[in-house]
Amino acid sequence: MTQTNTPLAELLAYQKQTEALAQVAGRLSWDQETVMPRGAADQRGEEMAAMEAVLHARRTDPRLGEWLDACEGAEVSEADAAKLRHIRRDYDRSRKIPADLAAELARVTSVAQGQWAEARAADDFAAFAPVLSRVIELRQQEGQALAGGGDVYDALLNDYEPGATATQLEAMFAEMRPRLVDLRGKVLEKPQPAGLSGDFPAEAQMAFARKLALAFNYDLTRGRIDKAVHPFSSGSGHDVRITTRTAEDDPFNCFFSTIHEVGHACYEQNIDAGYALTPLGQGVSMGVHESQSRIYENQLGRSRAFTGWIYDQMRADFGDIGVDSAEAFYAAVNRVQKDFIRTEADELQYNLHVMLRFDLERALISGDLKVADLEGAWNERFEADFGYAVPRASLGCLQDVHWSVGLFGYFPTYSLGNVYAGCLAQALRVDVPDLDAELAKGITAPATDWLRENVQRHGGLYEPREVITRACGAAPTAEPLLEYIEAKFSDLYDL
Amino acid sequence: MTQTNTPLAELLAYQKQTEALAQVAGRLSWDQETVMPRGAADQRGEEMAAMEAVLHARRTDPRLGEWLDACEGAEVSEADAAKLRHIRRDYDRSRKIPADLAAELARVTSVAQGQWAEARAADDFAAFAPVLSRVIELRQQEGQALAGGGDVYDALLNDYEPGATATQLEAMFAEMRPRLVDLRGKVLEKPQPAGLSGDFPAEAQMAFARKLALAFNYDLTRGRIDKAVHPFSSGSGHDVRITTRTAEDDPFNCFFSTIHEVGHACYEQNIDAGYALTPLGQGVSMGVHESQSRIYENQLGRSRAFTGWIYDQMRADFGDIGVDSAEAFYAAVNRVQKDFIRTEADELQYNLHVMLRFDLERALISGDLKVADLEGAWNERFEADFGYAVPRASLGCLQDVHWSVGLFGYFPTYSLGNVYAGCLAQALRVDVPDLDAELAKGITAPATDWLRENVQRHGGLYEPREVITRACGAAPTAEPLLEYIEAKFSDLYDL
Repeated sequence: MTQTNTPLAELLAYQKQTEALAQVAGRLSWDQETVMPRGAADQRGEEMAAMEAVLHARRTDPRLGEWLDACEGAEVSEADAAKLRHIRRDYDRSRKIPADLAAELARVTSVAQGQWAEARAADDFAAFAPVLSRVIELRQQEGQALAGGGDVYDALLNDYEPGATATQLEAMFAEMRPRLVDLRGKVLEKPQPAGLSGDFPAEAQMAFARKLALAFNYDLTRGRIDKAVHPFSSGSGHDVRITTRTAEDDPFNCFFSTIHEVGHACYEQNIDAGYALTPLGQGVSMGVHESQSRIYENQLGRSRAFTGWIYDQMRADFGDIGVDSAEAFYAAVNRVQKDFIRTEADELQYNLHVMLRFDLERALISGDLKVADLEGAWNERFEADFGYAVPRASLGCLQDVHWSVGLFGYFPTYSLGNVYAGCLAQALRVDVPDLDAELAKGITAPATDWLRENVQRHGGLYEPREVITRACGAAPTAEPLLEYIEAKFSDLYDL
Repeated sequence: MTQTNTPLAELLAYQKQTEALAQVAGRLSWDQETVMPRGAADQRGEEMAAMEAVLHARRTDPRLGEWLDACEGAEVSEADAAKLRHIRRDYDRSRKIPADLAAELARVTSVAQGQWAEARAADDFAAFAPVLSRVIELRQQEGQALAGGGDVYDALLNDYEPGATATQLEAMFAEMRPRLVDLRGKVLEKPQPAGLSGDFPAEAQMAFARKLALAFNYDLTRGRIDKAVHPFSSGSGHDVRITTRTAEDDPFNCFFSTIHEVGHACYEQNIDAGYALTPLGQGVSMGVHESQSRIYENQLGRSRAFTGWIYDQMRADFGDIGVDSAEAFYAAVNRVQKDFIRTEADELQYNLHVMLRFDLERALISGDLKVADLEGAWNERFEADFGYAVPRASLGCLQDVHWSVGLFGYFPTYSLGNVYAGCLAQALRVDVPDLDAELAKGITAPATDWLRENVQRHGGLYEPREVITRACGAAPTAEPLLEYIEAKFSDLYDL
């Protein structure tokens, strides 16, 4: 039994309240994106700011430092040691950022997000450039404060992916890029399979999305599915909600967004209940989180076996869907097209999108690339990697919200997640050789149980690379993902 | 322009954050009653407790005392003076209650609520009595801490209705009780009008409830209507949400609950926007709040004129509803029945319910009535006032949740609200003589505009009795309400 008056007990009790308050702030964001009356936006801004002020004060409270110091060298359990590691890292990080810099970043990125949306609507990068320059300046300052003489980009990256370095990612991407560019070239020379056609009412899509969520063992007694403009997953522990969206001519958008968010949500739901409202009670990094969403969405959800089951279900629920065999359906799900938007990209081209952003944002943060030259640099690189030209900024460097809200160092975690998913899928298939027989019946439990047991339940117990290494029995590399993509698309496109 | 570095400015900036956080806590309760996954209950308890801890710390922060002292004697606007009055009252109150008493009350009432629900389901008052005794003990201690030698019940009452005293209420109720008992006796000897019959699907009821809410000028761009087990209104300013419920055999339950909650919600929505996130930005007391909900529900919603419009609308939306004239519909809406439940009582009997509770809870708090004797005392009093006997505890002293959550001093504010509504309706009819002609067309704006202008917009600017006195041009008395009830039911029942 834990004593209640030790520095560790006091620290963890304090942290538990902070974690609970962070959950409240997250729920407020969920509310804003789903059910909030539109006239409440300004008031909500005040409410969010008040919550952030409370959380910031708690995260920089000097008592944290005293408790942490008092815990140094104490003999504690593996879990408590991990909790202390997280609290120490967050505390040190929060204390390094000057309060006025944090406030200015909050203010400028709030403005920048609005200007980005307007610039994107007007296809006018120049209108966005000044505020983007200011965001970059502030993030450079923040990165310098965090890096303490070390690499500024790495300092930013570590916010999303503790322990990762740009050098490491650069080497990984150098391996991936030529093979993906080569494959993309071959695939795009081939004839394209047909897409779906039929009647896909929004309400029927939402009902089908629920069916998919249940097929992936999302626990709806501790979650819910709503519509929102952007699909997302929100919350930890016993209240993990997802959103999806519907487009009447494109049911795959709804269905695979749902499976993707279910992957994120199941990670949160399946963390050891004993870690709830502790620093171990959330997914450990963006990269590991994305590994779960992507393996659910792609290696499982877009597999030949599982799409066969979806095909039958869709024909039962929607009637004629315009393709007449499970194989044609599988090809339609995995169609590779000349397109420009990262979030809609197929598995083959997706990582090329990320690498482009990674290289450009590193250059922006280092100062090697000026904001004025960003649009040109983007378009040149895009054509080199994708083989076709960007027609306008909204399909190019204005497509993502990330930079406007200051998210530099975030993009590469998407590809890291894909790489991790590749490793996990390989290990999973070794441990569960008859997986496809189950997937073909719409049963994902052998896979989701394996992921819960080997990855999800650990929450923040291990560092990101460590949890993947433990699950796979080897350090992660890009090779399994590349082999998977090459095999899948060579087969699909008769290469 | 307000200076930003004065004690007043610092105090109001601090208070604004506190108000914003209180809105967040309120939204969390709304979420819990409407959309929260059922498995999230325990985690939500932790989240609510963390929010309460933050709010309690802010409300007892010694800096409040320093700022308030520094503002003493300063020349400030009427609104700022009112803000200071509210902050001072809340601060003094919070500081008077020992932290361990507050914590124990929170713990015991949480347990008591569960035990009350079980006892009610089992019709077993004895099972609830021990925990109720404990709640009363703690509330007595709290009242003593607050009263500082003064009247303990008044100290509790003032939490909900600042400035009200039990002596004042007692005199008012002494005037009301014999006249209502007498009228009730005469009415119950008369034949009862028929009720509705027809097909009232839940979804159609909700659609109709929206129509009613809009007829009362509820602003849905700053609000929303959802289903919940109990109807309630939640939030202030630009985000004021209501809930209602549906029973397929009783559409009036849904419709008049909706109008009632719309009254509460419109009060919040119509407060001067400049008071948002200040202590003036909410309804000033429970009594004044209830005056708005009751005048919307009863003097307007259950009037002959407006029910004529509802009758036409219901026949259009639901077809045959089992009554064949507007007059029969009006009688059905206002039917007086032998019933036991306060929340379902007609206008005539409602206040008899409240007076019964007021007398019993005063006796419980003073110690004159023992918990062991409560059920007997309730049943005896009920038969004296209502003329028929309580068959079981769930229809008697176990029907309301209030005492289990420690709400002593709350019940009389319901009747005070009815009395205020009576006064307001009288003044309104003088100022808007052709009101019925508009109500008969489903147009409530002459009434709701008058209420916004004379009551709602002031928020917390004036003390409760003062805002009613200003609106009516005279201090409130029970006479207008009694005359209204006597006239209405004498007419309906041919007395």
